[in-house]
Amino acid sequence: MNESAITLEALKSELDRQIEGPPFHHWLKPVARGVDAAEKSVYVAIDFRPELGHMKGSDAFHGGVIAALADITGHATVAVWQGSATPTISLQVEYLSLARGQTLLACGRLRKLGRSIGRADVELSVDGRLVALARGTFSTGRK
Amino acid sequence: MNESAITLEALKSELDRQIEGPPFHHWLKPVARGVDAAEKSVYVAIDFRPELGHMKGSDAFHGGVIAALADITGHATVAVWQGSATPTISLQVEYLSLARGQTLLACGRLRKLGRSIGRADVELSVDGRLVALARGTFSTGRK
Amino acid sequence: MNESAITLEALKSELDRQIEGPPFHHWLKPVARGVDAAEKSVYVAIDFRPELGHMKGSDAFHGGVIAALADITGHATVAVWQGSATPTISLQVEYLSLARGQTLLACGRLRKLGRSIGRADVELSVDGRLVALARGTFSTGRK
Amino acid sequence: MNESAITLEALKSELDRQIEGPPFHHWLKPVARGVDAAEKSVYVAIDFRPELGHMKGSDAFHGGVIAALADITGHATVAVWQGSATPTISLQVEYLSLARGQTLLACGRLRKLGRSIGRADVELSVDGRLVALARGTFSTGRK
Repeated sequence: MNESAITLEALKSELDRQIEGPPFHHWLKPVARGVDAAEKSVYVAIDFRPELGHMKGSDAFHGGVIAALADITGHATVAVWQGSATPTISLQVEYLSLARGQTLLACGRLRKLGRSIGRADVELSVDGRLVALARGTFSTGRK
Repeated sequence: MNESAITLEALKSELDRQIEGPPFHHWLKPVARGVDAAEKSVYVAIDFRPELGHMKGSDAFHGGVIAALADITGHATVAVWQGSATPTISLQVEYLSLARGQTLLACGRLRKLGRSIGRADVELSVDGRLVALARGTFSTGRK
Repeated sequence: MNESAITLEALKSELDRQIEGPPFHHWLKPVARGVDAAEKSVYVAIDFRPELGHMKGSDAFHGGVIAALADITGHATVAVWQGSATPTISLQVEYLSLARGQTLLACGRLRKLGRSIGRADVELSVDGRLVALARGTFSTGRK
Repeated sequence: MNESAITLEALKSELDRQIEGPPFHHWLKPVARGVDAAEKSVYVAIDFRPELGHMKGSDAFHGGVIAALADITGHATVAVWQGSATPTISLQVEYLSLARGQTLLACGRLRKLGRSIGRADVELSVDGRLVALARGTFSTGRK
């Protein structure tokens, strides 16, 4: 695949494939927000809804939701450049501060695309403020 | 707190507090399944439902759901022995195999309860088969 | 390889191969201390020497030394059951307390031996007291 | 401390303090190479010597040496901005490729400096080629 050909359409297609497929994504509703082909980065967002909250009456995203979006975005980053699904091997999430606000935006950046392993870093922010750092390892090998 | 006094009621109370509070738990429906006070371990489970699936028509739990249950169980492990909420600092999840089956059971084990940091290991299995390993660091310090 | 055939000799052979080879091991001096074939566990130790210290005049092992022994022990765990070298993909170390004492003992336990990925957990203790937890992912695939 | 006042002298002082103190650093010989106060980044390097090698006759740095430099550099990053020692809580290292070459350069970047926790990302390269990614959590709280 021509790496410079990775566009927002490719990311949408990856997430749409997921949304058609996994009902969990259908429920979580991750939205493709952008692709920077030069930086090998993708942007995926979810808007706050009460059922994503960590505490009743608070507009802060639950840590489990943040971990789930980190997984989905890391996967999408490696998968769009790989051109196929790339099962998650490991995921690490470091929480920096309470994720209070309207939109949780995840920026995934491809760090390695090897024959058996792909890596992506994911930074998660809410309304422009960094709330978590994540890093994932994904399988790019033949099954 | 007398550590040997940690019972299934304490775990239920921790998760119930969460279920009353965070709508995300209300949706995910983690259930307190047991406490081993001698081993400082807790057991939390969720049953499969289609909206937790990683792929349409498959009965395998989505990786993001596994990460979320790891976070909740690690937190509950530290929180019941700490006697208060303990915000997640870091979470690591290692995926071992496809999580296909009826019930995702997480066993959290307390590894450290310090003045500022608590640690828990979490093993996740589906119908008796290990599918993921997780480890979390939680804040036990005063805010 | 017959897994029950893994013995202390196999572990010594793995570490000896390393000691003959890597001058870093020659300097660090990891010693094979035991194998539990039923538990798929290995034991590797290093004795304190001043140049392993984290502070002048203290007998606590430096965190970098702990990380290095975690890497070596995790690798040896997967490598002896794999029957060949298995390059490290990822290593995580959680420090629990100051590692002060005579002997740093690492216990590596095999958690997965798959076609492309192997996993090992490593617990590090000093004179019987747990000081760090580690977890490693290693490549078991063909180059 | 005025953050813009962090200079190469501060980093040298941090590492020198360590070199005077910990014999492990005295042996490893990490060298302060630069500080970018605007980016909150520090650069620390070690030159290849045979006893740092992963295999006899090879000029590739051992994975344990890479982990140790990641720990030292992450710590130095947080410590120079904190103005005091900051014990390592967790360290994660992701290995990307064989670290063959003359100089292993670690770039540590401060990601958080909180009241109880500091975070640093560390990128390690050899002769300009990225070989590993690391991330560390450090204690910034009062003992």
